Amino acid sequence: MSVVFADGFLANGVACGIKGSGALDLALVMSKGGKPIPCFATFTQNKAAAAPVVLSKEHLLKSNNRAAAWLLSSGNANAATGSRGLQDAQAMCAAIADELSIATHEVGVCSTGLIGIYMPIERPLAKISSLVHGASGDEAHGVLAAEAIMTTDTFAKFATYEGNGYRIGGMAKGAAMISPNMATMLAVITTDAIVDDDRLSRALTQAVSLTFNRLTIDGCTSTNDTVALMSSSLYPADEHFEEALLQVCKSLADQIAFDAEGATKMVRIEVEGAISVEEALVGARKIAESQLVKCSLYGKDPYWGRVASELGFSGIDFDLGKLSISYQGIEVAREGIGFDYDRSHLERLLEEREIKVSVNLGMGEASAVITTTDLGPGYIDENMGTS
Amino acid sequence: MSVVFADGFLANGVACGIKGSGALDLALVMSKGGKPIPCFATFTQNKAAAAPVVLSKEHLLKSNNRAAAWLLSSGNANAATGSRGLQDAQAMCAAIADELSIATHEVGVCSTGLIGIYMPIERPLAKISSLVHGASGDEAHGVLAAEAIMTTDTFAKFATYEGNGYRIGGMAKGAAMISPNMATMLAVITTDAIVDDDRLSRALTQAVSLTFNRLTIDGCTSTNDTVALMSSSLYPADEHFEEALLQVCKSLADQIAFDAEGATKMVRIEVEGAISVEEALVGARKIAESQLVKCSLYGKDPYWGRVASELGFSGIDFDLGKLSISYQGIEVAREGIGFDYDRSHLERLLEEREIKVSVNLGMGEASAVITTTDLGPGYIDENMGTS
Repeated sequence: MSVVFADGFLANGVACGIKGSGALDLALVMSKGGKPIPCFATFTQNKAAAAPVVLSKEHLLKSNNRAAAWLLSSGNANAATGSRGLQDAQAMCAAIADELSIATHEVGVCSTGLIGIYMPIERPLAKISSLVHGASGDEAHGVLAAEAIMTTDTFAKFATYEGNGYRIGGMAKGAAMISPNMATMLAVITTDAIVDDDRLSRALTQAVSLTFNRLTIDGCTSTNDTVALMSSSLYPADEHFEEALLQVCKSLADQIAFDAEGATKMVRIEVEGAISVEEALVGARKIAESQLVKCSLYGKDPYWGRVASELGFSGIDFDLGKLSISYQGIEVAREGIGFDYDRSHLERLLEEREIKVSVNLGMGEASAVITTTDLGPGYIDENMGTS
Repeated sequence: MSVVFADGFLANGVACGIKGSGALDLALVMSKGGKPIPCFATFTQNKAAAAPVVLSKEHLLKSNNRAAAWLLSSGNANAATGSRGLQDAQAMCAAIADELSIATHEVGVCSTGLIGIYMPIERPLAKISSLVHGASGDEAHGVLAAEAIMTTDTFAKFATYEGNGYRIGGMAKGAAMISPNMATMLAVITTDAIVDDDRLSRALTQAVSLTFNRLTIDGCTSTNDTVALMSSSLYPADEHFEEALLQVCKSLADQIAFDAEGATKMVRIEVEGAISVEEALVGARKIAESQLVKCSLYGKDPYWGRVASELGFSGIDFDLGKLSISYQGIEVAREGIGFDYDRSHLERLLEEREIKVSVNLGMGEASAVITTTDLGPGYIDENMGTS
């Protein structure tokens, strides 16, 4: 399972002391034998991108998209740490490269955790050797790697896909600061399928845009988001490779939504009847990022007036008189005004862990779905003091 | 005080039963004698604008910006109520017009409260006659009017300004669904200054854009926002009229922030060193609307990394290496990295009810301030179930 489900990969996770708790905080995913293999990644679009993002981008450019390993640390984001942060990220890659006798630019690095604090660099460096030499392709080590990238996640996240002769596996971490329109959070995906560079790159970009980038928890875009895909290129891919990668990304994205900080519900916001997919996405995101809508969902309250109000201010083509809104398939508004429904029946349906809010704009034929969560006191508890 | 501070105005507030609680829910502000006087208003830009907004816009257009009275109701927004909602708003204006023997289009109407529910129209209509005939220019009736527009507000909001020979007074209501870039919430402002139409209109637009439109509580833009300004035109204005109007609007906007649903702090987000005021505003709003930043403020935690991250994704010109950030005047980050400060001293300063977060982008000379609040469990309690 996890990143070792596909052939040709090793993984490991250890505790190096970045986290004060002593929990696992350093993960490695590498090709068997430590040889550089095809690797593509998407990164945050935040202009305050963290040192590991800046450096990993440079490395992939310099290596012509070949990497032998990704080193991932949790507990400290190494973001807003200036030139010292870049040196620290560089030192982490160099240590892995030394162990594998490869070039530093054939290693990628990701960090997640608090912003604005220097990495206690001696701690990860002291564990690099045992991390590399303890790496294994067995299932337990795949789980260790997934656990070592957790921050406020309550469970380790991984997904696998058994293709026709090839495999794809991945791990991810989520928690807060999750918003669409970029590579959101950290994920490493591995495959043993033979896929040429162009196709691999395109498949990743498309899968990320349709899954991680359609997930928003709080509209906050992290400084560290990275999704990396490595291929050991052992077995021929088939025509379903893109769909397979999409399934793995979708599973990881859903697990992130399900486990978002303080959330009690995963919510699909579906906007139909838009004049374009772009407008459907704008409308769905506006609803998904509305504090008021999210509070209603926490309260199991189908207060569709807030949904209508968000759409009215989203900037998309909109006519209140053509709007209909359903919760859990029960229509609560039609042609812009309230519609009679069985309130107690719907209240029972809103007790569920996964909720669907469907909007039909009545303007065109396009549709899109954004995944989000409710907003409850748990989110505030998690985020009121972490610096 | 309130809307009767300026000469030439009467006000009243009664309970008509829109609110189940029996609280005051119907307010009137009218010119003495019920004669149409100069009146300008700014309205929400939400495309799902409520019936009272649609109708009041039409009335001001038709009357060439003359109005004798504004009727305001609370407890039901008359929004997302279709053609019946428009008829109801029309009936409310017509009833006032009948009492004053003026044209229906010389009356404005505002409603605030729940969206998507029909106005129980017989209740306000039954009270119109006593509302009009009980109206008075005494202080107590000014307060009654301000109280009758409250929803989840915890105190009535009014402001006055004593000019050189003229006066300005106003009332407002706030609570949730407050966001900049439009006439936010409900406010009625009155003055006895003689100001020609063009100047009155420009003064209102400018004052609103610098006060109400620089206030954001939750980024949600109401369907009903209206700010109306009436002038009884009794005494000459001076060159300070614009500044006087600004002061009244500023006081009302601050009261709204101070009393925002579930907030424990009023927060000024100041962005300096931007390349333009527009960019400073974009950056300040992005910070002010960040759930993560607001949770930190609730927790009295100067977690500046979240501020840096929001700026990095705000789309403005940004260079992390030039960024400095202060809380309550204490610098916590300089040139994009953490800066040593007296943590326990700052923690004491963050206990205060009004907080200032200052950001210097180091890119240019422009600056702007947005006013917001923290995000605590009280907001969720207020908003988890209200339909």
